[in-house]
Amino acid sequence: MSCGEFELIARYFNRVTSSRRDVEKGIGDDCALLNVPEKQTLAISTDTLVEGVHFLRDIHPADLGYKALAVNLSDLAAMGADPAWLTLALTLPEVDEAWLKAFSDSLFELLNYYDMQLIGGDTTRGPRSLTLGIHGLVPAGRALRRSGARIGDWIYVTGTLGDSAAGLALLQHHERITDPVAHEALIKRHLRPMPRILQGQALRDLASAAIDISDGLVADIGHILRASECGARLNIDALPISSVLLEHFDHAQAVRWALSGGEDYELCFTVPEINRGALDVALGRLGVPYTCIGQVAPEAEGMTLWQNGEVVELNLKGFDHFDAQ
Amino acid sequence: MSCGEFELIARYFNRVTSSRRDVEKGIGDDCALLNVPEKQTLAISTDTLVEGVHFLRDIHPADLGYKALAVNLSDLAAMGADPAWLTLALTLPEVDEAWLKAFSDSLFELLNYYDMQLIGGDTTRGPRSLTLGIHGLVPAGRALRRSGARIGDWIYVTGTLGDSAAGLALLQHHERITDPVAHEALIKRHLRPMPRILQGQALRDLASAAIDISDGLVADIGHILRASECGARLNIDALPISSVLLEHFDHAQAVRWALSGGEDYELCFTVPEINRGALDVALGRLGVPYTCIGQVAPEAEGMTLWQNGEVVELNLKGFDHFDAQ
Repeated sequence: MSCGEFELIARYFNRVTSSRRDVEKGIGDDCALLNVPEKQTLAISTDTLVEGVHFLRDIHPADLGYKALAVNLSDLAAMGADPAWLTLALTLPEVDEAWLKAFSDSLFELLNYYDMQLIGGDTTRGPRSLTLGIHGLVPAGRALRRSGARIGDWIYVTGTLGDSAAGLALLQHHERITDPVAHEALIKRHLRPMPRILQGQALRDLASAAIDISDGLVADIGHILRASECGARLNIDALPISSVLLEHFDHAQAVRWALSGGEDYELCFTVPEINRGALDVALGRLGVPYTCIGQVAPEAEGMTLWQNGEVVELNLKGFDHFDAQ
Repeated sequence: MSCGEFELIARYFNRVTSSRRDVEKGIGDDCALLNVPEKQTLAISTDTLVEGVHFLRDIHPADLGYKALAVNLSDLAAMGADPAWLTLALTLPEVDEAWLKAFSDSLFELLNYYDMQLIGGDTTRGPRSLTLGIHGLVPAGRALRRSGARIGDWIYVTGTLGDSAAGLALLQHHERITDPVAHEALIKRHLRPMPRILQGQALRDLASAAIDISDGLVADIGHILRASECGARLNIDALPISSVLLEHFDHAQAVRWALSGGEDYELCFTVPEINRGALDVALGRLGVPYTCIGQVAPEAEGMTLWQNGEVVELNLKGFDHFDAQ
């Protein structure tokens, strides 16, 4: 198959399906032109996904299109931002129209769900990888940050932890668990994480700090603690672990995945005691569970893990591309 | 060598050397937080550079750090925008501190020159490639676009054309030309293109359309003509070709490079007759030559190349990653 680079981009990615009025010029010039509304702050994040490192070689392009955007949306969620625009740099070993169609259809489905617009990108030949640049808007002064946690604040997470790591393990080892529904549920948690956009926005005036869990709970809480100059006590018994995970895996393995498996794309956040009632009102109506798993402590204490009222030592490691591979 | 991903990023890229007050939060959270000044429009572009496709395997990291930013700056120049913020997604096969130091020193030197700030990024393991996301600001309603050319407008380019392609050919074929100063000059034009930021800004109210020459003059004028629904007559005799190129290469080869070599990163723009006097005032003081090379024609004429007052046919092709490789 031979088709020019520009044509290729045009065919699959030049779709304007959003109703955004802040896009003055989208794809088709040297730059996109965007207008940020008054009293809104722009939130920008960028993430690269490399084949063999961040996604398996045999991933379905529809899953990749979804997940690439979802993990970037998760960064916006962690700031309490409202999704707006996306840039996509796509490097592909060859032009495969079936692949492009499935990938782009899936990407645009999620873009449309959030009324986002693809405003630019680049397509190049090379080893398969993607870099997304995501842009969101947040009312001035109300963005969530990692640095606001204070001693005594309560530590929460949304959803359940460890399912994504279990799903990845199943995919990597080509294993199946006996219950097909449970099997698919875990795979889906890995391939189709749900960015917690609404939860992030609901937390804007309630949480003192927030992060999304990509590297693993312990590693990501570590980022909050370093930025906030605090320690933390985490209660292992309180970790929200799904019944699927508990039924089909060893309890110790489930706990390890919950603490350090990574790619959960849930939010971890801290809430001052005074905001806990308002938190229940704000998050309670959004249909996703949230769980208090510990408390912010003085920095000198570091991060301690507690089980049955005692400190435990666990050998854990966050996912690090240059160490773990 | 073993060092964590986060530490690695911190060591080489967490430098804040700009005085920008529009950066509320730079590197170090899930997103950067930026404030766009009132009555300014945001210009965004993204470009990927892949080893073996966009840069040679043996390129010096300092040249790569410079060029990666320069080609993105060139997109801002083509819109008449003022450079502001950069995101950098870096994929590397291994952690090489000497490489990182040389690359980042060179990148920051150019960032500092334009008082830009690196606001975020991602570092991953994989085949070497870079994706930059560049953000600039342009006064509302004054951005240059590809779509404004009108029949009768004059077509100009800045600088000289074809030098970069000649430099690339020398590098690829490990050849040298006799004059070492000329040799280095051509190599430099390929490795260290000068983005025409000041020229782009000076053209804001004078040019009817603009683009930067990355794919090659003919291909890039083609983008203006398609966006503007026009044709063009280009005068080959008027092409600005450097004396170095003319002295050391066959004239026909020099012309082919000027027309379609690509990676010149000069600006090509159209100017209505009435603005030509103002153009000479605005560009004349900036120290870079600019040359009228043709005129916008009716769309039905297409693009024609003229030499000695006659239409000529040349077999030319713009650089296309999926066709030409």
